Amino acid sequence: MSDRFESCANRTSIFLSRNLKITLAYDGADFHGWQVQPDKPTVQAALADAIERVTGERLLPQGSGRTDAGVHALAQVASCPIESPIPAVNLVTALNDVLPSSIRVNAVEETAPDFHARKSAKAKTYRYRIYRGDICPPFMARYVYHHPYPLDEPAMMAAANLVIGEHDFTSFAAADPEKDEEAGSNVRTINFSRWERRHGEELVYLVRGNGFLHHMVRNLVGTFLLVGKGTLDTTAFRRILEAKDRSAAGPTAPASGLYLVRVEY
Amino acid sequence: MSDRFESCANRTSIFLSRNLKITLAYDGADFHGWQVQPDKPTVQAALADAIERVTGERLLPQGSGRTDAGVHALAQVASCPIESPIPAVNLVTALNDVLPSSIRVNAVEETAPDFHARKSAKAKTYRYRIYRGDICPPFMARYVYHHPYPLDEPAMMAAANLVIGEHDFTSFAAADPEKDEEAGSNVRTINFSRWERRHGEELVYLVRGNGFLHHMVRNLVGTFLLVGKGTLDTTAFRRILEAKDRSAAGPTAPASGLYLVRVEY
Repeated sequence: MSDRFESCANRTSIFLSRNLKITLAYDGADFHGWQVQPDKPTVQAALADAIERVTGERLLPQGSGRTDAGVHALAQVASCPIESPIPAVNLVTALNDVLPSSIRVNAVEETAPDFHARKSAKAKTYRYRIYRGDICPPFMARYVYHHPYPLDEPAMMAAANLVIGEHDFTSFAAADPEKDEEAGSNVRTINFSRWERRHGEELVYLVRGNGFLHHMVRNLVGTFLLVGKGTLDTTAFRRILEAKDRSAAGPTAPASGLYLVRVEY
Repeated sequence: MSDRFESCANRTSIFLSRNLKITLAYDGADFHGWQVQPDKPTVQAALADAIERVTGERLLPQGSGRTDAGVHALAQVASCPIESPIPAVNLVTALNDVLPSSIRVNAVEETAPDFHARKSAKAKTYRYRIYRGDICPPFMARYVYHHPYPLDEPAMMAAANLVIGEHDFTSFAAADPEKDEEAGSNVRTINFSRWERRHGEELVYLVRGNGFLHHMVRNLVGTFLLVGKGTLDTTAFRRILEAKDRSAAGPTAPASGLYLVRVEY
């Protein structure tokens, strides 16, 4: 009898279980990145806590990828199977009521049972903001990398073109291979890579690709900056890309300028 | 002999002493206001520390007025007599090199010996930003007051007109009279007071006057919000202004929305 009840409960639970797609923005400055870590504030932990407070269910929402400490998101995507019957649209308000104001859920949708925020992702777009003015307004300090020194911006734009297409990005992967977002091949396809001037004093890098290695955007930006400073020319940049050797590339650019802009499925 | 030396040194020091006018912006979210307090980070203390690191002189720069914890400044003004021969223009860079990125010195000028940032001020302008959208972007949370609920904005605009002119603002002063920016009369002249819509989702209050009591702008905004919510009408607002009684007015609006925009001399 007890067995039967449990079995029913399980069946009911499977029947009621829903898969949610949660789209959220966050100011990464106060978090130790996306992924849960013991005794450190992370976005994933804050979202899990909020879901538990709202639904009573203890779950670990899966993100489209980790963002590092200090990195921001305009539209990170998380997926999470849930049993709560609360309508998806009501969850937006309910989660925002309990989340810190530095994290905002912008959308919750019911999605296919096999949808997984990381495994189902087809493309991602990142933005990197550099503030070029002499004095960085204090209200922007958390949200840009301040670099007021001379840069050869046309040379950086030329170098950005070189990464478009399919390449092995080992040279721009994090030194620690364990931290790679996806194990295996370091080959990725980049279909948009461009520096542009915005609002007069901002130099912004936009990149879209089918996947990114850990630290890849910040390592690309750090190497583009060496081109901007004249330390490297575009031929040297191409050689670094072809070297498939992390030690060949420039330093990792600061986290404060980086934004996860969009995840496409 | 020793006396004569000291007297010479004093004369030399008086001759070299300069009076500086320092214009600075800050993100108030991480500070316990402008004024030095034991064991708490304040803007005045951070500026004094920076001046000491750059010049070796321990001084307390005087601000045009205190800003409370969480209140921002686009152009606070501080004055400070100093002996260092470092050219004013070089001090901008030198101070910014040692200040936290949440405080930026935008200008340093030599000014008349009798200039005092507070006593010489002729007018001040404040701005109060309310974000009206349903979901406040996490990048704005530190810099606005989020109020997504219905507001009768035309009624708030009408109430804002009522404070223009010379009035006794006792009703809008801080409950603690010790904290008043200037002792004595609570009469001030307001020559600009207006709510306007900005960037679609922002409702912004701009006010310019010859002086402000402690908490006055935030208490005005808190009372305008009662008008917006329909709790008060403009007749009731006028009665509160005329009551000269703090208990008559609305609550103090949150600090995060308030900016000291300009000090005129």
